[in-house]
Amino acid sequence: MPEQSKSHVTVLGLGRMGAPIASAFLDAGHPVTVWNRTAAKADTLVARGAIRATTTAEAVEAGPLVIAPLLDHAAVRQALGPTAALLQGRTVVNLANSTPDHARDLAAWAAGHGADYLDGAMMALPETVATPEGFFLYSGSQRAFTRYRRELDVMAPAHYFGTDPGSAEIHDLALLGTGYAALTGFLHAAAVLDPVGTAPEAFAPLAARWLHGMAEFLPELAREAGESAYAGGVSTVDLNRAGVDSLIQLSLTSGIATDVHEPLKALLDKRSADGHGQDSFSSVFELLRPRDTAEHGTQSAGRPGDGHR
Amino acid sequence: MPEQSKSHVTVLGLGRMGAPIASAFLDAGHPVTVWNRTAAKADTLVARGAIRATTTAEAVEAGPLVIAPLLDHAAVRQALGPTAALLQGRTVVNLANSTPDHARDLAAWAAGHGADYLDGAMMALPETVATPEGFFLYSGSQRAFTRYRRELDVMAPAHYFGTDPGSAEIHDLALLGTGYAALTGFLHAAAVLDPVGTAPEAFAPLAARWLHGMAEFLPELAREAGESAYAGGVSTVDLNRAGVDSLIQLSLTSGIATDVHEPLKALLDKRSADGHGQDSFSSVFELLRPRDTAEHGTQSAGRPGDGHR
Ligand SMILES: NC(=O)c1ccc[n+]([C@@H]2O[C@H](COP(=O)([O-])OP(=O)(O)OC[C@H]3O[C@@H](n4cnc5c(N)ncnc54)[C@H](OP(=O)(O)O)[C@@H]3O)[C@@H](O)[C@H]2O)c1
Ligand SMILES: NC(=O)c1ccc[n+]([C@@H]2O[C@H](COP(=O)([O-])OP(=O)(O)OC[C@H]3O[C@@H](n4cnc5c(N)ncnc54)[C@H](OP(=O)(O)O)[C@@H]3O)[C@@H](O)[C@H]2O)c1
Repeated sequence: MPEQSKSHVTVLGLGRMGAPIASAFLDAGHPVTVWNRTAAKADTLVARGAIRATTTAEAVEAGPLVIAPLLDHAAVRQALGPTAALLQGRTVVNLANSTPDHARDLAAWAAGHGADYLDGAMMALPETVATPEGFFLYSGSQRAFTRYRRELDVMAPAHYFGTDPGSAEIHDLALLGTGYAALTGFLHAAAVLDPVGTAPEAFAPLAARWLHGMAEFLPELAREAGESAYAGGVSTVDLNRAGVDSLIQLSLTSGIATDVHEPLKALLDKRSADGHGQDSFSSVFELLRPRDTAEHGTQSAGRPGDGHR
Repeated sequence: MPEQSKSHVTVLGLGRMGAPIASAFLDAGHPVTVWNRTAAKADTLVARGAIRATTTAEAVEAGPLVIAPLLDHAAVRQALGPTAALLQGRTVVNLANSTPDHARDLAAWAAGHGADYLDGAMMALPETVATPEGFFLYSGSQRAFTRYRRELDVMAPAHYFGTDPGSAEIHDLALLGTGYAALTGFLHAAAVLDPVGTAPEAFAPLAARWLHGMAEFLPELAREAGESAYAGGVSTVDLNRAGVDSLIQLSLTSGIATDVHEPLKALLDKRSADGHGQDSFSSVFELLRPRDTAEHGTQSAGRPGDGHR
């Protein structure tokens, strides 16, 4: 009787992300209760077997696990507000994009009403929900993550980042930052190629290939940074300093802004000036990581910008 | 008699890149003459059938196509200098890392001695030579590229970027710039996660996945930028402004430098202030591309930093 082992799932919010999420739970054989502010968005899901709730209270009462892929923090507060008295013993998974502090606020509010709280960040697009391409980040109640791991994995591979409810959003921002930097670098490079007549469309396939290569390189970079082991790398600070200098020179010659690459130039120059020119490129991490956690947790006497070892 | 159709190839320089290149030509059935300053590095190739030249002149005389994966510009000049009188009618492919101006100098020098010149940039590692992962960029003599396309493809898929001999190096720098930005973004993100206890090694697999996703996204970004078609994008300037603001706020809270993301923040803020907040994220390209090539080649009256449409 495998059907009986599938727990009941409530989905609040059937927007671009919520609809495929509710759909994935139906596909996986879960009993699903759905609610959406604009009720009509539930119709196709109801036709496929979902139970329609007309209020959020009704939706929350329907089962122990409440998943909310709503627009934002305000929408989640608004949707959950009227359900406060019903939350005791249930688990709330907030999938709205939020800030670390908003996530902590909501966690405290949920805890005050006896609910376990998980904050989630969806690293996915509507079309990659329930595919191997998407992945979701979680933090907050360890108990909730363990208990509902199987349900969470229905939406996307689930990664847990500790009990601080803000941690999922922090990891979300870290990933966004990596991506923003890459896209900015690409658009800057496309601008550099504008005067030589190469269109962005012609450059994109090569840049994509190069970026895939960079992605493959991250584990090695991370190992060096994580272990502060920078000796013997093939790609040294000084080698890359020359590369970044050439790039900035070319940007100047072409009348393109140089500020995109100046932070890296400053980091490499400083490492080199401090006698670390033969260290691996990744050693600029020593200048980026926060002062008080450098030296594996011991306070460093250095001034800001002087955090190398 | 397929062997007869394989042209003779000379390889000057058998370092980390030169050795696998010479080896690839042997594998492909080409007669190969090799020269290296430190002669012993030729031994295994000679054992496999390569012809050893003891001087660069001897190596150049051996055939019509001379490929030089040497250390740098100085090494190429030093190696080719004594061969000037022998270059008439031959093709020189300079694969040393260089600058656009050095490439142009060498092209002029080669032309002065009756040689066709191709400048190349190797977007590969020693182990990805002659595999689908590597690719080489070329510019300079169109005739040489056309004539020797088959030979060039033995080393890596060959991409041609016009008759300016400096163009291959410019495209090389553009790719490096895209990669540098991505790696800097990753190390910055790893620093942001340092205070919350996530090690770079734990973050790397997720960041790699995210970066692969960004790479897949480049063609769409490039199409928008190339066509200056920024309406109706799902990822707007204002949406991403909020994201970048949160990221900078988090960096500040964590005591991490914010300068890595400030250029993007400034671009997004300016686009938004100029009334383009609902345009696609990619529209920051309008502020990056050089002034005089904006508006599809017409001079723009805007001051620097005012290049939007
Ligand atoms: N779309 C993506 O590619 C993507 C990817 C990753 C993460 N995200 C994040 O996922 C979350 C949802 O995004 P989405 O694209 O699914 O958004 P969406 O398509 O705009 O859907 C928003 C949902 O929130 C509901 N809602 C909005 N304000 C509400 C309120 N005050 N009270 C109750 N319900 C309210 C909407 O109900 P109505 O139908 O009644 O308007 C709808 O169900 C966002 O935080 C977004 O940042 C989106
Ligand atoms: N390694 C990579 O991953 C990689 C990737 C892409 C591009 N590149 C570029 O490819 C080029 C070659 O790099 P590599 O890694 O193969 O370098 P390498 O292993 O250091 O080899 C350098 C080669 O240049 C020769 N050489 C150096 N100075 C010379 C001089 N003054 N006269 C004559 N020969 C000289 C060396 O001869 P000896 O053996 O006598 O020293 C050797 O054959 C560089 O421009 C590099 O930037 C390298």
